[in-house]
Amino acid sequence: MKTQQDLWEIVPELVEVEKHLEEIIFSRAEYLPPVDSFLMERKGKKLRPALFLASARVHGNNLQNLIPLAVGMELIHTATLIHDDVVDNARMRRNMPTINYSQGNKMAILLGDYFFARAFTILTAYGRIEIIDLMTNVVEEMSLGELQQQRDTFNTSLTESDYLGKIKQKTALFIASCCLSGCLTASTTSEIEAAFYNYGLNLGMAFQIIDDVLDFYGKEKNTGKESCSDIKNGIITLPVIRTLQLSTKKEELYTCLNRGKLDEMEITLILKEIKSQGGLQYSIKTAEEYIVRALSYLNKIPSGEVVQNLKAIAQFVLARVY
Amino acid sequence: MKTQQDLWEIVPELVEVEKHLEEIIFSRAEYLPPVDSFLMERKGKKLRPALFLASARVHGNNLQNLIPLAVGMELIHTATLIHDDVVDNARMRRNMPTINYSQGNKMAILLGDYFFARAFTILTAYGRIEIIDLMTNVVEEMSLGELQQQRDTFNTSLTESDYLGKIKQKTALFIASCCLSGCLTASTTSEIEAAFYNYGLNLGMAFQIIDDVLDFYGKEKNTGKESCSDIKNGIITLPVIRTLQLSTKKEELYTCLNRGKLDEMEITLILKEIKSQGGLQYSIKTAEEYIVRALSYLNKIPSGEVVQNLKAIAQFVLARVY
Repeated sequence: MKTQQDLWEIVPELVEVEKHLEEIIFSRAEYLPPVDSFLMERKGKKLRPALFLASARVHGNNLQNLIPLAVGMELIHTATLIHDDVVDNARMRRNMPTINYSQGNKMAILLGDYFFARAFTILTAYGRIEIIDLMTNVVEEMSLGELQQQRDTFNTSLTESDYLGKIKQKTALFIASCCLSGCLTASTTSEIEAAFYNYGLNLGMAFQIIDDVLDFYGKEKNTGKESCSDIKNGIITLPVIRTLQLSTKKEELYTCLNRGKLDEMEITLILKEIKSQGGLQYSIKTAEEYIVRALSYLNKIPSGEVVQNLKAIAQFVLARVY
Repeated sequence: MKTQQDLWEIVPELVEVEKHLEEIIFSRAEYLPPVDSFLMERKGKKLRPALFLASARVHGNNLQNLIPLAVGMELIHTATLIHDDVVDNARMRRNMPTINYSQGNKMAILLGDYFFARAFTILTAYGRIEIIDLMTNVVEEMSLGELQQQRDTFNTSLTESDYLGKIKQKTALFIASCCLSGCLTASTTSEIEAAFYNYGLNLGMAFQIIDDVLDFYGKEKNTGKESCSDIKNGIITLPVIRTLQLSTKKEELYTCLNRGKLDEMEITLILKEIKSQGGLQYSIKTAEEYIVRALSYLNKIPSGEVVQNLKAIAQFVLARVY
């Protein structure tokens, strides 16, 4: 399995991003709950700043000035994770206790708000209205996607198309907007901008599908999260949707899910059915198709280091599942 | 007691603000929990958009273009209230159930996030970096203020100066920034900008002190919130700080508060002590001093309709307590 290190090899500036994040935490330490371990030890993948910086390399942009923007994007992502963990009652992330679990829901809500605001202060300081606009839209769509997900828990009539619409809103738009923002910091053409955006959009779809697959069969050690947390929370993802389409035990599965709460035996039943119906393989295949589509947009970008890096990041996203 | 209507007489454009807010809710109704009643029936005071619009009237600005900015400011405030109600486990606001009480904490967190993001999308569309910057700073400071408040619950060593610092961060900076933003939409001098800002800052201090006084003796019918919710949550406000300074029952009060939880009898004891030590009168006097200071800054603004309106708004803020 590819590790975090690979992404840092592709985009070495992530070391600077990490340093800036630490400074942000330390500069307000007297106000914040003891969260240093959250950001220091639990360094995330930093996929979003990596994509932003890799895209910004187009036309030989100076990346040094762009580190704060990359930090802003990672802070938006961090804020989202902190709030999502409250919403999902998650107890573990990145192999450590979540903020809500260790510090309580109140602290987690306020800390998420602080990180959102800090992120936008940083983006605003850069002064490019288009980038601020992209990012406020991202947060809007992510929260609408999450609201919809909450409304749709244990909803067995969810279709594949509903699911794809939701993950676009929840994940892919953010990733697309990081790529586009990177490209916007250089002067380029609207055709190239569209290529970056569509690369990111398709990559983001693949990334979320793989995340949803890993929720079922990823080992906690590797994902850093509890297993099967989606289905426990009633969040119906692609492997389940596919299984409900094909399974001969459809009625039994519907009955479990429609009760709105699952016990251990029911989860075991669902996992068995997903396995026998090939729900995970189907999802991985779908993710691979999105990766192929993402890569096809790279043909429109002048080849060179940037394209090589974006190809490598796409491989990194896919490699998480193997 | 002055009612909401008074503010709407001073700034009739608040009707438009109300209409825009309704449109924002309805346009995304399929995603949102049934919150229409929250914003439709529970119209708030709209102090922040009122101050923004009243300040923007300086130099005969066209207010029509500024309605969306006013809506953005009210949405930031609404998002804050929704999250604060989760943090405080509040069950009632504006005489109706809170979102967390009626729809659950998860929905309240996500809805707050959505309103924050929508607000910043609206502010970004107007395109003035200075105003976006002011408002991201406001949200940052507000969440730091709230984090500090959580850390300081039942902290009996809190001084008057700690309290004043916290309410500046939590409330006064937002109100000052609304006034300054209004002024920034017109072309004026930096001296006049400072006058608007300082008027707002002092008014905001008075507003929060009065809010904290009303928490003790306001009737639920009038405040729309549960009585004594601050002290029940361990939030130490000015009337308590003053009482702890003067009371001969200091030790008894410390013992209650230091336990970190209060029963009905203990709350009655604290209320009695606040009454006998004049804690509320002292707080009201402090608020009045801030109002006097706020009004003094109006001398630096060319007199006319704007100054008359800002004077009337200051009277409105003070009148809530009588």
